[in-house]
Amino acid sequence: MTDYYSKHFTKTLKEDPKDEEAINAKLLIRAGFIDKQMAGVFTLLPMGLKVVNKINNIIREELNTVGCQELFMPAFQSKELWEKTDRWNTDNQVMYQMKDNSGKEVGLGYTHEEVITEIATKYIRSYKDLPQAVYQIQTKFRDEPRAKSGILRGKEFLMKDLYSFHIDIKNRDKFYEKIKEAYKKIFKRIGIDTVVTSASGGTFSKYSHEFQTISESGEDTIFVCSKCQSANNSEIINENGKNCKECNQELVEKKAIEVGNIFKLGTRFSKVLGLYVADATGNKKPVEMASYGIGPTRVMGTIVEVSHDGKGIIWTKSVSPYDIHIIQILNSKSEILNNNKTSNSKFKTEEIVNQLEKADLDVLVDDREGISTGEKLADADLIGIPYQIIIGDKTAEDEVEIKDRKTGKVEIVKIAEIKKIINN
Amino acid sequence: MTDYYSKHFTKTLKEDPKDEEAINAKLLIRAGFIDKQMAGVFTLLPMGLKVVNKINNIIREELNTVGCQELFMPAFQSKELWEKTDRWNTDNQVMYQMKDNSGKEVGLGYTHEEVITEIATKYIRSYKDLPQAVYQIQTKFRDEPRAKSGILRGKEFLMKDLYSFHIDIKNRDKFYEKIKEAYKKIFKRIGIDTVVTSASGGTFSKYSHEFQTISESGEDTIFVCSKCQSANNSEIINENGKNCKECNQELVEKKAIEVGNIFKLGTRFSKVLGLYVADATGNKKPVEMASYGIGPTRVMGTIVEVSHDGKGIIWTKSVSPYDIHIIQILNSKSEILNNNKTSNSKFKTEEIVNQLEKADLDVLVDDREGISTGEKLADADLIGIPYQIIIGDKTAEDEVEIKDRKTGKVEIVKIAEIKKIINN
Repeated sequence: MTDYYSKHFTKTLKEDPKDEEAINAKLLIRAGFIDKQMAGVFTLLPMGLKVVNKINNIIREELNTVGCQELFMPAFQSKELWEKTDRWNTDNQVMYQMKDNSGKEVGLGYTHEEVITEIATKYIRSYKDLPQAVYQIQTKFRDEPRAKSGILRGKEFLMKDLYSFHIDIKNRDKFYEKIKEAYKKIFKRIGIDTVVTSASGGTFSKYSHEFQTISESGEDTIFVCSKCQSANNSEIINENGKNCKECNQELVEKKAIEVGNIFKLGTRFSKVLGLYVADATGNKKPVEMASYGIGPTRVMGTIVEVSHDGKGIIWTKSVSPYDIHIIQILNSKSEILNNNKTSNSKFKTEEIVNQLEKADLDVLVDDREGISTGEKLADADLIGIPYQIIIGDKTAEDEVEIKDRKTGKVEIVKIAEIKKIINN
Repeated sequence: MTDYYSKHFTKTLKEDPKDEEAINAKLLIRAGFIDKQMAGVFTLLPMGLKVVNKINNIIREELNTVGCQELFMPAFQSKELWEKTDRWNTDNQVMYQMKDNSGKEVGLGYTHEEVITEIATKYIRSYKDLPQAVYQIQTKFRDEPRAKSGILRGKEFLMKDLYSFHIDIKNRDKFYEKIKEAYKKIFKRIGIDTVVTSASGGTFSKYSHEFQTISESGEDTIFVCSKCQSANNSEIINENGKNCKECNQELVEKKAIEVGNIFKLGTRFSKVLGLYVADATGNKKPVEMASYGIGPTRVMGTIVEVSHDGKGIIWTKSVSPYDIHIIQILNSKSEILNNNKTSNSKFKTEEIVNQLEKADLDVLVDDREGISTGEKLADADLIGIPYQIIIGDKTAEDEVEIKDRKTGKVEIVKIAEIKKIINN
C-alpha cells in the first residue's frame, strides 16, 4: 500500500503544541499522528490510527492464539448494575455519570467487570461451559483530574480489556500465567521492554502484576533487582521492604510507565452478580475470574517516550505506520513541471514503488512540490518511519540508498533486496 | 479460520428477549450475536462483532479506493466548540451533556462536523491542500426517547461518518456523486437493496440523499416510482406532491429503513470555525463541505429484517460471521466417548476442516456433545450461516451434502469443490 504525502490529510507542524509538556504529545502532534481536542482527549489522525491498529492486531493475534474471543461492549453503564457491586457511589470520582432527558442515570465505563459478568450469566451455566476468555478493544472514559502526560493518561482512551472465567483457582491461575506469557510476547513484538512488577491485588487478591516500561516520564515508581530483574511497585515495597529476597540485593528505584496489568478478581463479581456454575458433582459454586488490560493508545505514547531523539520519533518496525519513507528530490523547476517519464526522480519513484508494493511493503512517498530537500528530510526524521530512501536525479537504475532512522547508517542496496533489509 | 461451537462464548437462547418487539433484536439476541445492556444499548457478542467487522471492511475498501483516509475522533465534545456553531443549546435534546468533577461541561458526539472542521483548519491552508476526505468508524451517542427498534435505533451505536472538503461547489458536487456511487457499491456488496431517496437538505442545502432499504419494519416513509425507481421522502412529497415528474406516474408509499445518507453542508461549518483557504488567485474563501453517514450496526439489523424466515436469520455471504456451518452428528454414546480416528464423524470433520482452511474459508463446527441432531439443525438455521454441511457416520470419504440456508436446496459435492459453490 502506498500513500502520497502531498495528498495526506496531515502535514507536520512547525511549532510545539501549547499546554503540552509531555514528549509523546509534543512529537505525536507535531508529526501529525494525533490532535488534541481538549485536555486528555485526542483524535487519532490517519497515521496515528495506523500505528494503533498495528498494536491492536498484534494484541489480537496473541490473544486469539490462546483461545480468547473478541467482542465489543457498550460505553454506557447501568446504574442499577453498578449499585449491585457497590461501585456506583464509591467510584463516582473517576466515572462520568449523567442523567438522560428522561431522568435516567447512566455512567460511562472505565472498566467492564459488571457488564461482562452479567452477560456471562446468560451463557455460562455448567462447568462444561468453562473456561472462557473474552476481550474487547474499546473506548474508555475516566474523569482524570491530572491529564498532563499526553496520551499516557487520558480522559478518553482506548483499552484492551480481557476477562477470563474458570471453574476453580487452580485453572484460573494456569490461565493467568498463560496470559502473562502472551503479554510478554505482545510487548516483545511491539518492540518495548517491560518488567513484570508485583503489585497489590487491592481488595480482590494478594497480588496483581503490572507490565512496566522504564522511562523517566513514567508516573509510576518501581523497584527493580539488577540481578534477577524481579520488580515490585511501591505498595509492595512498603509492605516488604527494599530488598530482593531471591538475590539478597537492594532494589533500585526507577520511574516507569504501566503499559499493562493483570489481575485476579476471585469471586468478587461472580458472587454478587449470580455467576454460579454446577461442578461435576452437581455443587453450585461461584466462577473464578481474572481481568487483563493493555492500553493501546498509552502503548503508542510509551513507544515515543522510549524511542525518539532530538530530530523526532523512531518507530519500531512492527507498529510503524509505513515500512519505508521515500523522499523524492525534485531538483529543478522544469522537473517539477515535467510530470512524465523524462522527470527522472518521479519516474524512478514509480518504478521503486511498484516493486515495493509487489513485496507487500507499505510506503509513504513525500512527493510534495515546492518543499526543500532539507525540509523533507527533517520531516521524515520527525515522522520516524524506520527506513528512508532518497530518490533524486542521480539515483541508479537498480540500486537505492536506504537510511536506518535509528542508527543513521546508510546502505546502498539493490531494490530487490529492500524487503530483506527491512525484515532483518 | 475455524471455531468450535462447544468452546464458543455464546450459545443460542431458547426464549425471545423480554421488552423487544423488533425482529432484528429478537433474532440477533436469540442467535447470540448481540446482548441488550439496556434500552437502545447493546453488546456486540463475538459473532455479531464478526458481522460488523465484515460490514466495516467493505465500507473501508470502497472509501479508500476513492481516496478517503481513516482517522478516529473522540466521543467527548467541547462545549465551547459547539457554542461557536450554535448547536450546544439547540441540540441538547439529542446530545448527552454532563459536568465532570471539575465542573467543566462536555458532550458526547452524535456527529463530528465541529471537531473535524476545527482539525481541518490546522492542515488545510491553501487550495493545494484540497480536496480532502476523512472518515471514522466510531461509537456515537444519542439521547433517543424511543429506542424500540432493536439495533436499528440505539442510544449508543456505531457510525461511519465521512467528511469531505473542497475548493468550490463544482468540485464538491463531483465528489458527492463519487461517494453516491461508492455507497451503491457498498450496499450491493453487503447484499441489501437500497433506493436513493431525495430528502430535504435542512438548513444547509436544497437536497440531501438517503439510502433506504424497503422494509415493513422501517420507521421512514418513502415514495417510490415503480417505473424509474426514483424516490422521495415525505418532506419532498409535501413540497412537490406524489407524482413522479419524469414518468408522470403516481409514487407508491413504502416503509423503509435509512441505512445511509449523504449531505451537502455548504460553508455552514467552515465559515463559523474559520476554515478558509486562498484560491489560485490569492482570494480567501470558505471551504465547501459535505458529510456522508452509514450506520454499520443499523446495517446489521437491516439485513436481519429483510433476510430471515420462520427458522431464523439468513446472512448474506459477504457479511456472514462464517462461510460454512458444519454440523457434526454424534450418533452413539460410544462414538462420543471414543475421541479418536475410529470415531467416524469426528475424524471426517477434521479432514474436511483442514481442506476448507486451506481454501481460506471460515468455518463454524457444531461439535457439541449431548445435543440432539434436531437441536443442532435448528440452531444452525437460527444462526443463519449461508451454507451448512452435515457430517455423520455415513458421510462418504470425498463428498459432502451442502445445504443452502436460503433455498433449503441440498447438493452433493466433492470437498474440493466447496469453495466454488460458496463463491458462486
